[in-house]
Amino acid sequence: MTDRPNTPLLDTVHVPADMKRLSDAQLEQLAHEVRAETISAVSQTGGHLGAGLGVVELTVALHAVFDAPRDRIIWDVSHQCYPHKILTGRRDRIRTLRQKDGLSGFTKRSESPYDPFGAAHSSTSISASLGFAVARDLGGRPEHGIGDCIAVIGDGAMSAGMAYEAMNNAGHLGKRLIVILNDNEMSIAPPVGAMSSYLSRLYAGQPFQELKAAAKGAVSLLPEPFQQGARRAKDMVKGFAFGGTLFEELGFSYVGPIDGHDMEQLLAVLRTVKVRADGPILIHAITKKGKGYQPAEDALDRGHGVGKFDVITGEQKKAPSNAPSYTSVFAKALIDLAETDPRICAVTAAMPDGTGLNKFMERYASRCFDVGIAEQHGVTFSAGLAAGGMRPFCAIYSTFLQRGYDQVVHDVALQRLPVRFAIDRAGLVGADGATHAGAFDVAYLANLPGMVVMAASDEAELVRMVATAAEHDEGPIAFRFPRGEGVGVEMPDDPEPLEIGKGRIVREGSRVALLSFGARLKEVSEACDALAQKGVTPTVADARFAKPLDRDLILQLASDHEALITIEEGAVGGFGSHVAQLLAEEGVFDEGLIYRSMVLPDIFIDQASPRDMYEVAALNSEDIERKVLDTLGVATLEKRA
Amino acid sequence: MTDRPNTPLLDTVHVPADMKRLSDAQLEQLAHEVRAETISAVSQTGGHLGAGLGVVELTVALHAVFDAPRDRIIWDVSHQCYPHKILTGRRDRIRTLRQKDGLSGFTKRSESPYDPFGAAHSSTSISASLGFAVARDLGGRPEHGIGDCIAVIGDGAMSAGMAYEAMNNAGHLGKRLIVILNDNEMSIAPPVGAMSSYLSRLYAGQPFQELKAAAKGAVSLLPEPFQQGARRAKDMVKGFAFGGTLFEELGFSYVGPIDGHDMEQLLAVLRTVKVRADGPILIHAITKKGKGYQPAEDALDRGHGVGKFDVITGEQKKAPSNAPSYTSVFAKALIDLAETDPRICAVTAAMPDGTGLNKFMERYASRCFDVGIAEQHGVTFSAGLAAGGMRPFCAIYSTFLQRGYDQVVHDVALQRLPVRFAIDRAGLVGADGATHAGAFDVAYLANLPGMVVMAASDEAELVRMVATAAEHDEGPIAFRFPRGEGVGVEMPDDPEPLEIGKGRIVREGSRVALLSFGARLKEVSEACDALAQKGVTPTVADARFAKPLDRDLILQLASDHEALITIEEGAVGGFGSHVAQLLAEEGVFDEGLIYRSMVLPDIFIDQASPRDMYEVAALNSEDIERKVLDTLGVATLEKRA
Repeated sequence: MTDRPNTPLLDTVHVPADMKRLSDAQLEQLAHEVRAETISAVSQTGGHLGAGLGVVELTVALHAVFDAPRDRIIWDVSHQCYPHKILTGRRDRIRTLRQKDGLSGFTKRSESPYDPFGAAHSSTSISASLGFAVARDLGGRPEHGIGDCIAVIGDGAMSAGMAYEAMNNAGHLGKRLIVILNDNEMSIAPPVGAMSSYLSRLYAGQPFQELKAAAKGAVSLLPEPFQQGARRAKDMVKGFAFGGTLFEELGFSYVGPIDGHDMEQLLAVLRTVKVRADGPILIHAITKKGKGYQPAEDALDRGHGVGKFDVITGEQKKAPSNAPSYTSVFAKALIDLAETDPRICAVTAAMPDGTGLNKFMERYASRCFDVGIAEQHGVTFSAGLAAGGMRPFCAIYSTFLQRGYDQVVHDVALQRLPVRFAIDRAGLVGADGATHAGAFDVAYLANLPGMVVMAASDEAELVRMVATAAEHDEGPIAFRFPRGEGVGVEMPDDPEPLEIGKGRIVREGSRVALLSFGARLKEVSEACDALAQKGVTPTVADARFAKPLDRDLILQLASDHEALITIEEGAVGGFGSHVAQLLAEEGVFDEGLIYRSMVLPDIFIDQASPRDMYEVAALNSEDIERKVLDTLGVATLEKRA
Repeated sequence: MTDRPNTPLLDTVHVPADMKRLSDAQLEQLAHEVRAETISAVSQTGGHLGAGLGVVELTVALHAVFDAPRDRIIWDVSHQCYPHKILTGRRDRIRTLRQKDGLSGFTKRSESPYDPFGAAHSSTSISASLGFAVARDLGGRPEHGIGDCIAVIGDGAMSAGMAYEAMNNAGHLGKRLIVILNDNEMSIAPPVGAMSSYLSRLYAGQPFQELKAAAKGAVSLLPEPFQQGARRAKDMVKGFAFGGTLFEELGFSYVGPIDGHDMEQLLAVLRTVKVRADGPILIHAITKKGKGYQPAEDALDRGHGVGKFDVITGEQKKAPSNAPSYTSVFAKALIDLAETDPRICAVTAAMPDGTGLNKFMERYASRCFDVGIAEQHGVTFSAGLAAGGMRPFCAIYSTFLQRGYDQVVHDVALQRLPVRFAIDRAGLVGADGATHAGAFDVAYLANLPGMVVMAASDEAELVRMVATAAEHDEGPIAFRFPRGEGVGVEMPDDPEPLEIGKGRIVREGSRVALLSFGARLKEVSEACDALAQKGVTPTVADARFAKPLDRDLILQLASDHEALITIEEGAVGGFGSHVAQLLAEEGVFDEGLIYRSMVLPDIFIDQASPRDMYEVAALNSEDIERKVLDTLGVATLEKRA
């Protein structure tokens, strides 16, 4: 058994209602215990550590003052929700975080009534809270009713246009709504953008001591009946506000900045707001990511995402790596090309580390742009760069590129601008679960006229695709690659660009052709190795391109084999659908080709290891093997008939 | 010949360079002539009138002061670009606006070097301009080089998160960039949102007279050598600024508000900015939509979008209508249901008129929400409403829903929240051209787990789909319908909800089955009428659902016919692709079904009448007829073989 922290108070709290009998001093103690429990749990599971540690006091204070689940507390992104989960009936499963069949690493409606709105992508909380607030005032009657609607959103998430849209609308509607700006000057990466500088100015030079004094005054107010204290409470809230013009101009009352780790202050402000708020109000809380755990506080990323670790030393246990990650291969390839091509530049939306562009940024600072959590802008900014004669690589995860979809259609594809989309995290991603699956990009990109869509089957192919994209000035081009390590193939010294729209035969065989698009090729090969033992030897091809399709290759495969099976790490509507359209138009089906298309199934797949997730998806080598045998069975039956 | 206005000065201006020799007084005269020409042209073509009239002076001033195409003037949305087109070498074709083979109603890179970045959707101009500005500073060398980068954006467009993202990034990067906020307090609809109130406050009580005086001072400055006038010019710019904190907080210098119809003031400010700007600068110009043409100024929508009209009276020529528009049918159906169901509410993103929700708003003001040009927020706000127990209808055009795609995936589908998506303008839309085509929605929605996707084949079906959506509380549901008039069928008095996932047989026939999804059913029927003359009698089915598919119906059609043809007004990856996936999995292809899928072709189709556009797409009745005959030819050949 692992050592568990000593948590006598927390042991008595099963749901937030249990906190109502605790004194303020006990709540402070409870926060310490929640912090220790969070560290202990994440040391065993890995996950998002820093964000949760930064909101321990805020989480305790919110649940002490408000009444969830009737009051709707919505955590933006929600990677900071572990303390919340510990306090809302899920402590017994907290050491299953992000594991198969365990708790999600994010809030999730299906997991608990205390999660009124799930998240994982950023900047949705204000929109959702406003929806609840309006539903409340219109008499919406969901389970638990609706009390206060509270969004907790980070400063990084505030850089997204969606948050601004929501603030703009909330300010206009004037409904009672509480937004807590959790300002740690640190989203996943160091903050960027003018808003970030603005927030810094808001609290520069405002010593917390003054606020502490104000908070003490507030505390002394609160034992009085609220009716009598109302005027003074209101004055106090006003007293807090200074310099918050930007939010005030958008129609919010502004309270802050307050010290988000000072329980006394938090309780005072939340209690006052609870009594006094009569429209949208923004509470600006300053917190520290990783707070209270030295190894996290000391880390450059403040312990944003960690593996399992030793609680005493903070040392993370890392699995030995056999091959470089696709991400690092992409980054290195781009850096190499940028050395001789000054037109190459790179754009990330607040993910310099995740996309590997931090390395590019170190080398070519002036050609690397972190636009913040702003995919819409990031895509069109890249389009402008392309129109201006540059060769932009817009590196966005598959799931996040959904945020910039219209910009891909309207600003890039319609104008045939040569933006290069580097789409990381294609396919299923593991512990981050369904919200981060890169399932839809091939379907939503490959039907755009003029778009070139590639998928890398291994890390050497990825390097060639980077080179292909760099040279492709005729229009937009996208290449997708999975999360995780490559397969360990030898890397080309001087990667040659691919011919657009040309796939390759990987194994010559007979009867069945397996046409793979992307990194399932490894599983296809494994399946073929197993099949060879049974005397079955399919032909294997790597399509490389979902668009344009390699017509010659596909029609040849169809005519030379009894059966054709496509395999991809994406939903229906993508590669296989384009192949089927080709086969239909060419009349190949008319003659009775046995055709199957292996795609992601029509379900959202919960977190697990990628392998386990692909087992659910029936896209592992065993599944491919079985599909080949089933197909051959059909072929054999047909022959007999 | 129609009367043309007398335009002696304009007749001498073929490209902006021709304006350089004109005096300021002549530029003012030129503006009058451009306005007259704009009115004259639009009276013959129809189109966006009010927006262009509002920026006549601004357009003249911009081209007089800056040097396009080297200086990049980017018009946001660009429906206000007709005066710009008149002044940039396209006057000879201005009376072909929005016609087949004519000028686009929007800016378009392929049309002119004076259109550095095309548009039609809103709020992209700042991102694109910033891309050009960064490319310039990195040494990007496109045609014409890159000088000043100027975005002209309306106050409505400024409510979109994307504009905020771009401002946030531009303020951070600090590049020289000029944003002109064209503030007419009127986007397509009256303005909404806190930003709009904020802008009003910025210029309330600031008499233009003061600014005029300042502008005069500026003019007197300008003959001096710039070097000497620099300090004073800078002070003057500073002098203009007041109250612009919100933009200043985002890192922009703020100039304004200025009178956007006062040529003297405009020229003075632009000249000063041109000399002095050394970072991002925002010029706040107040204009009047429809300015200078009384019928437009008097219209509620300020002549936003007009048909052909009589210049003297302003009276628009309307084609007689045989059937109600799909839009009005949707709105009426929703109003009827809302009468008895208080949970029904509606969300539009700045398109109350276009979606028909203006009628709903008149009747149920408290249940109708115009969130502004903010599709991301609109979708998640709807998700919040649904989670709060309401039955929200989120009415967004197909092409604009692309703006909220991630929110559909992450906030709605993943959580199975019953948001009802009313998707107007599905398929090709006519004069608005490729940018407004609703081509991709079925592909990007039907692969989302748990999503129900319907398409209406006529207006009676639409009413039933509204009823179906209203009752469907189990998860998200979408229904799409085309722009324009219905087919004139009888409307049900008490529309019965459809059974989810069930299509219908429309005609019983033999040999070939036509499976139609959506409003091409009319053309399918016409094709069958023509085929009947030739003794060919296909079976016709209306699929109604792309998801869930009517498996029984489809498999039955496949087994009862030699050939199956799907028809839809959407790109590959949608309905037909889902049918093909089903047929493949069920082994139907193994036995040699002749299968074809008629979809939108892999090109962006330029504006024309919808019928002409569908001719390009090969989706008219003649095309369907031909496809049936071709298919039967194959079938007959096979039989003989």
